[in-house]
Amino acid sequence: MFTSSDNNKALFLGIDGGGSKCKAIVMNEKNEVLGTGIAGPGNPLHGFEQATTSIVASAKLALTDAGLTNVSLNELVAGVGLAGVNLPVQFEKMQAWQHPFKQMFLAHDLLIACLGAHHNNNGAVIISGTGSCGFSCIDEQEVLIGGHGFPQGDKGSGAWFGLQATKQVLLSLDGIVAPSSMNDILLKQLDCTNTTSIVEAIAGKKATFYAQLANLVFDAAEQGDLVALDIVTEGAEYINNLARTLLIKQPARISMLGGLTPRLKSWLNEDIQAQLSEPLSPPEVGSVLYARSQLAKQKTKQKTKQEQSA
Amino acid sequence: MFTSSDNNKALFLGIDGGGSKCKAIVMNEKNEVLGTGIAGPGNPLHGFEQATTSIVASAKLALTDAGLTNVSLNELVAGVGLAGVNLPVQFEKMQAWQHPFKQMFLAHDLLIACLGAHHNNNGAVIISGTGSCGFSCIDEQEVLIGGHGFPQGDKGSGAWFGLQATKQVLLSLDGIVAPSSMNDILLKQLDCTNTTSIVEAIAGKKATFYAQLANLVFDAAEQGDLVALDIVTEGAEYINNLARTLLIKQPARISMLGGLTPRLKSWLNEDIQAQLSEPLSPPEVGSVLYARSQLAKQKTKQKTKQEQSA
Repeated sequence: MFTSSDNNKALFLGIDGGGSKCKAIVMNEKNEVLGTGIAGPGNPLHGFEQATTSIVASAKLALTDAGLTNVSLNELVAGVGLAGVNLPVQFEKMQAWQHPFKQMFLAHDLLIACLGAHHNNNGAVIISGTGSCGFSCIDEQEVLIGGHGFPQGDKGSGAWFGLQATKQVLLSLDGIVAPSSMNDILLKQLDCTNTTSIVEAIAGKKATFYAQLANLVFDAAEQGDLVALDIVTEGAEYINNLARTLLIKQPARISMLGGLTPRLKSWLNEDIQAQLSEPLSPPEVGSVLYARSQLAKQKTKQKTKQEQSA
Repeated sequence: MFTSSDNNKALFLGIDGGGSKCKAIVMNEKNEVLGTGIAGPGNPLHGFEQATTSIVASAKLALTDAGLTNVSLNELVAGVGLAGVNLPVQFEKMQAWQHPFKQMFLAHDLLIACLGAHHNNNGAVIISGTGSCGFSCIDEQEVLIGGHGFPQGDKGSGAWFGLQATKQVLLSLDGIVAPSSMNDILLKQLDCTNTTSIVEAIAGKKATFYAQLANLVFDAAEQGDLVALDIVTEGAEYINNLARTLLIKQPARISMLGGLTPRLKSWLNEDIQAQLSEPLSPPEVGSVLYARSQLAKQKTKQKTKQEQSA
C-alpha cells in the first residue's frame, strides 16, 4: 500500500474545475488512478472562495476514495486545471492562493483537456458541450478558436443548437416559416400550449437551459425534418471549419470532447471524422501530466544551476 | 384658455409608458395638444411602484407644460398605454391601481402605437427599435407577430443587427470566415485591440448594448461590405415577411415605427415600401384616442340601459 512514509514515491493530485463541478483524481508515479472525488463549482469566475473550497473538498474526497486517509494535502503535488484562468486577472488571483498542497501547478481547462486527450504536448481538441471551442497546444504554442460565450459565440454547441431550434419554432408558430416537427416537441418539452407561453417560459434563460434542448434538434434531423436538418448542417459545418483551422498547424493528434460529441460527431464531414482520435484520458489526468512535466522542468533548471555553480 | 371650470370640455391625458421612459400628453376635445411631459420607466414589468410614479410624474409635467396648473389629475380622462400589460397578470395589477384620474382606460403599447399611427381601429404596425414585432388591430381583432425577446426573437431589430455583426466579427477574427470592414470598426467602437478583449467587453451584455451597434452594420452595408450586406438582407427579408403576414388580413393602413426605421426602411422590398404610410401621430396620442373611443362606448351602453329601463 502507498503511504506517506514512502518518500521515494510522489503522490499527484489532478483537478478539473468547471462551472458546475470540480473533479479530483489522485495518481501515483506510475500514473495509476488511486482515487477520485467530486465537489461543487471550481471556476474562480464564480467566486474565489467557492473555487478554492471545491478544490480542497474534492481533493479530500479523492484521498478518502483512495484509502489514503493518513496522507495530508501537503504531501500532494497538485496539477490544478480551471475554467476561467485563461483570463490573466483570474490566473493571478488563483496563483496567489495560499494553497494546502506540497506544490501547485496552475493551468486553464483547455490545456489540461488537451494534455489528457493526447498524453502529449502536441495535440488539438474540439469541444462541444454547453459551449464550444477549439484549442491546440503544439510545443507550448497555444491557439484558441471560438469560446466567445452565449449567445454571441459558441456556435455548434448544445446551447447554440437549442437556441436555433427555439428561434425556428417561434418563427414557424408566427407563420413566418414553414412548420417543423420540432414545434410540437418543443411545446411539449416546455409544457407550453402556444407562442405566448413559450415566450414566457424562455425569457431570460441562459446557455444551460438551451443546451437541454439540443437533443430534440438531432432527434428531428434524424427523422428527416428539414428545419432541423438545416440547423444541424450549419452547426456541423462550423465544427468542420473549426477542425480545419486547427489542423493547419498540424497537431500530432486531434480529439473531440464535450457532452454533445456523441450526437454531433457523425454529422461532421467524413474527412474530419477520419482524423479524430479518441481522447486517451479525461482532463483531470491532464492536470497530473501537466504537474509532472512542470516538476521535471523545475528539476532540470535546478540541476543546471547547481552544475553552473559547481 | 381651457380651465377646470369649463365643464363642457373634457381634458384627456395620453400615456405611453415603456422600459426607458414614460411620455404624457394633455389634449382637449378637439384633439389639440396642450402640453407634454416625460418621466422615468413606465413598464410595470420593471416594478409597479416605478411605473405608477412615472405615470403620475409625467402627467403633472404635461399639465404644467400646458399652463394648466389649476387643473388636478382627477379632472383628466386618462388613456394609459403600457409595455408589459399584454401579459394578463400585469394588466390586472395595473387595472387594480388606485389611480388619481377621473377615469383610466388601460391598453398595451402596441395597440396605442397602432391607434396613434392610423387614427383608426383598422391598421397595422411594424416596429423595429431595440426589439422588433408586427401588430394589427382590425375591428378589435388583434394579431401579434414576433416580439419574442432577445436573443431568441426580435429578428430585424437593432439588437439583432448588432448581435449578428458581433458574431461575424468574432468568427472573422478567428479565421473561420472572411474579413469584413466591420472588424476594425467594431474593435474601435468597443475600444478593444483583439478577440479576447471583445469577448470580455461583450460578456453578459443585453439587447440595448447590441442595439447601439446596429448603425455600423448599415454603414458597412452601404459601403458595399459583403458580410454586412448579408446581415442587412437577412434582417430586411424578415421584416418583409412580417409585413406580408400582417397584410394577409388587409389592414386599411400599415406603418413602420421604431428607432431603426430610418436605416432599415430603404432596404425593404419595393412592394412593401410602397404600401407603408407615415404614422399620423405618436403612441401617446393613440392612448387619448383609445380613451375617447372607450368613453364613447360606455356612454352608448349607459344610454341603451336607460332607454331599456324607461
